[in-house]
Amino acid sequence: MHFLLKFAPLVLGVSVCHGWLFGDFVGKQKELDEISLWPLPQKFQSSAVAFKLSPARFQIVHAKDSSAGPSCSLLDNAFRRYFEYMFGELKKHEKSRKKAFDSDLVELKVWITAADPECDGYPSLQTDESYELSVDEPSAVLKAANVWGALRGLETFSQLVYEDDYGVNNINKTVISDFPRFAHRGILLDSSRHFLPLKVILANLEAMAMNKFNVFHWHIVDDQSFPYMSRTFPELSQKGAYHPFTHVYTPSDVKMVIEFARMRGIRVIPEFDTPGHTESWGNGMKDLLTPCYSGSTPSGTFGPVNPILNSSYEFMAQFFKEISTVFPDAYIHLGGDEVDFNCWKSNPDVRKFMEQQGFGTDYSKLESFYIQRLLDIVAATKKGYMVWQEVFDNGVKLKDDTVVEVWKGNKMEEELQNVTGAGFTTILSAPWYLDYISYGQDWQRYYKVEPLSFPGTDAQKKLVIGGEACLWGEYVDATNLTPRLWPRASAVAERLWSDKSVTDVSKAYNRLVQHRCRMVKRGIPAEPLFVGHCRHEYKGL
Amino acid sequence: MHFLLKFAPLVLGVSVCHGWLFGDFVGKQKELDEISLWPLPQKFQSSAVAFKLSPARFQIVHAKDSSAGPSCSLLDNAFRRYFEYMFGELKKHEKSRKKAFDSDLVELKVWITAADPECDGYPSLQTDESYELSVDEPSAVLKAANVWGALRGLETFSQLVYEDDYGVNNINKTVISDFPRFAHRGILLDSSRHFLPLKVILANLEAMAMNKFNVFHWHIVDDQSFPYMSRTFPELSQKGAYHPFTHVYTPSDVKMVIEFARMRGIRVIPEFDTPGHTESWGNGMKDLLTPCYSGSTPSGTFGPVNPILNSSYEFMAQFFKEISTVFPDAYIHLGGDEVDFNCWKSNPDVRKFMEQQGFGTDYSKLESFYIQRLLDIVAATKKGYMVWQEVFDNGVKLKDDTVVEVWKGNKMEEELQNVTGAGFTTILSAPWYLDYISYGQDWQRYYKVEPLSFPGTDAQKKLVIGGEACLWGEYVDATNLTPRLWPRASAVAERLWSDKSVTDVSKAYNRLVQHRCRMVKRGIPAEPLFVGHCRHEYKGL
Repeated sequence: MHFLLKFAPLVLGVSVCHGWLFGDFVGKQKELDEISLWPLPQKFQSSAVAFKLSPARFQIVHAKDSSAGPSCSLLDNAFRRYFEYMFGELKKHEKSRKKAFDSDLVELKVWITAADPECDGYPSLQTDESYELSVDEPSAVLKAANVWGALRGLETFSQLVYEDDYGVNNINKTVISDFPRFAHRGILLDSSRHFLPLKVILANLEAMAMNKFNVFHWHIVDDQSFPYMSRTFPELSQKGAYHPFTHVYTPSDVKMVIEFARMRGIRVIPEFDTPGHTESWGNGMKDLLTPCYSGSTPSGTFGPVNPILNSSYEFMAQFFKEISTVFPDAYIHLGGDEVDFNCWKSNPDVRKFMEQQGFGTDYSKLESFYIQRLLDIVAATKKGYMVWQEVFDNGVKLKDDTVVEVWKGNKMEEELQNVTGAGFTTILSAPWYLDYISYGQDWQRYYKVEPLSFPGTDAQKKLVIGGEACLWGEYVDATNLTPRLWPRASAVAERLWSDKSVTDVSKAYNRLVQHRCRMVKRGIPAEPLFVGHCRHEYKGL
Repeated sequence: MHFLLKFAPLVLGVSVCHGWLFGDFVGKQKELDEISLWPLPQKFQSSAVAFKLSPARFQIVHAKDSSAGPSCSLLDNAFRRYFEYMFGELKKHEKSRKKAFDSDLVELKVWITAADPECDGYPSLQTDESYELSVDEPSAVLKAANVWGALRGLETFSQLVYEDDYGVNNINKTVISDFPRFAHRGILLDSSRHFLPLKVILANLEAMAMNKFNVFHWHIVDDQSFPYMSRTFPELSQKGAYHPFTHVYTPSDVKMVIEFARMRGIRVIPEFDTPGHTESWGNGMKDLLTPCYSGSTPSGTFGPVNPILNSSYEFMAQFFKEISTVFPDAYIHLGGDEVDFNCWKSNPDVRKFMEQQGFGTDYSKLESFYIQRLLDIVAATKKGYMVWQEVFDNGVKLKDDTVVEVWKGNKMEEELQNVTGAGFTTILSAPWYLDYISYGQDWQRYYKVEPLSFPGTDAQKKLVIGGEACLWGEYVDATNLTPRLWPRASAVAERLWSDKSVTDVSKAYNRLVQHRCRMVKRGIPAEPLFVGHCRHEYKGL
């Protein structure tokens, strides 16, 4: 009911009309039952008055005063995509010359208001994703500052459309004013433990857009394999990938992922995690990793990046120079988690270096020494960086715009308090490690998380810019990734987009059941929440 | 190493040859590493000597003395299926006129020895699935009493074939003598909690054949929906299915499932569970279910089948008469689990009946009363029946050939002891409820189960005829069923087929990794066991 209060000023003129329902629409009337918005918009009102949409007549068009026009291929592409979502791609949609009926909705006008619609730009942390949507006869109007808000509004519009008993598409009279609660709403996929074919990544970008996620955190390499094909150091994937041809991402694959994501308002933040998690790097880059010792002789195994050699830093400078040009986003994720000190401890040269530097036996100082130099290297590329929480915990000096990712489940609130207390921006992934599976409806657990429940000032809370659902790759590949991620990640999507007060699990259940069926209808094999069925079941295997 | 001893008499002539390796083949030599039999045959020996298979020359043919010939469409179909598994379906395989090289394997001769090859029959509990396979130049020979053993041997032969570094198919010189440890090796799928499209059922029958499973326990209806389209009582699915057209199994769908299974040596045992788990039956069959009462008035809800009305038994007689003709297998599963007595207790007519029968307040007597009459009805159709353990626990009088399914996890060994002690045949599913998921490699838990570890005589142990992996449908549908079932169910497959002594988990891991990649290559989205990759990753989504 808080929606009504918040929204009241905007709807004063119409709120006395018969049939308007505010806020909670999983409600009394048949028509409204079938609306299934996910994530729930910030402010909306819906009415029982319904309009019909004919695929032969309905159009998505640029508004007369829009700063974007037919040359805006991002929007053009989105118009066609959402038309297909609503009407299916198999039917022929020949234009009808018949006059529309009064009860028809004939068009959605998309009105970009800013001078620069950003058609050819990339979304960023600062992107304004807000939009306003009004559905009324004969036209619906979607208003947004730029294409990014328009993409979110198109998704919402398409979610408002529902099939009636005749299979006809309907949409109710609706007014929505919407914006995300958090600016960073991410999904982490891991293409190292298992290679993820391009098709899988693209399908999940599609699903992300359906859930208004806006960051693809691409944990692209790790100990197990190095599928990123580097132009500067081609041997990294030639020797570090599971297979140098079939299990790699070529430069054009990476470009395709970035462009596919951009078209959906999704940032691609690549993670190249060092100094730990780098076993696969060692295959193609001699002397990069620390040789581990067994007593006084090298054991033949290797540890983290060797932090005592200048060559390691020279390599990183060249490597990240490439990365900074390949990936357009302002941020690169530099990892920095779970560094195992045993190999460093075993190596006599490392021990000598520790002594020279006066680090004593505190190897976290050596870790910080490495990270500090790496951060300076990356800063020189003009990129911002994200790091896992250990980098902050170890007292490394960070640039002001660093984003610290809190992933450890224990003492999560304390960590948020510390990180924000030190004035750093942070995102939360600790409660959303979706690789951990269990019997039953674990989405509810993800849904119930309140990211700002830690003790702290308002200024501290503002530093929490979002969160990420992480699907680490130990147990997932092309065979099971997509149904394992969706709709479990949808719970995180709503938590990060919708108002803090949207916490009713049973209402969420009803909407999410429909949202997952919508994803299935659109070709995403999102798994069921519980017993039941979808009108259109998954057609794949 | 026990294989060597067992097999010694059979291989005396060749066991002195250079290069033979016995038993454990996940071994020292490169060629043998790539062999990945699953489930492991009872007796085998393999040699480092390898033959090449050319798709242009290799053939699977009937042996000259075989009782089966080209008119045996089951075998003909299987020959083509396994040829495709080995050589792929996309390449053109034009016959080559070039002479075979000495190192080629040019044919597999399939020799059916029994007078009746059973080409047009159905597999049964008594089916002989044993086979002998010898791979040597220029021909391999697969010998079996009938087509059922030949199917198992074809699967094994296809598993022996591996790609070398040139992508050429190779097979090592091998002798195998194989038979199943248990006769009943089943998979339970539940098409009521979620409707399973035919495509999903057929794909899983294919996967079952790859794992030498031989029973599809089709839990076809339950509380949630009644997708079985009955000719006698069409309203059951018209009103009880999730949707009367899109979410039902028509008579021809059922026929197709049975025939598809038959072609793979798989029995289809349908389960029509009563008197509980029948909510969906009530929609299309007036007065079948017990009306529940709230105080002295009917509450509008319904409980188990009404056991006090003759009409209930008349219905069951007609219904199971149909079922007995639709499903060719000698067994029908009658359920009988989890009967909730609350509704019966609330109903004054039921209470009165209890009094008349002298049951006191022991509602399990009423349950037994119902089941007893049902069993007599089904016995009249000349079918055998399977039941869940409660039916035995409640002391119902059972026919001698009844199969009691032990599903309760607690006191499982005690139950096996009791059931077999009473002289009844039993199958075990308690440790293999695969709908329960958890993080990590739970297949190992399934693998470590020893079905005969309960205290009992040899005669009692012989009454354990097998087991079933059950994937109940609360949380699975077309989107996620297949990767959730495979390769976790493969662990059960090996436990039920291979020798009792095959228990080494790390050796099993190495073979199962390859077996799951083989399933993926054959189009089954079997999920990964752990980090790694397949040469041919899954191409679907």
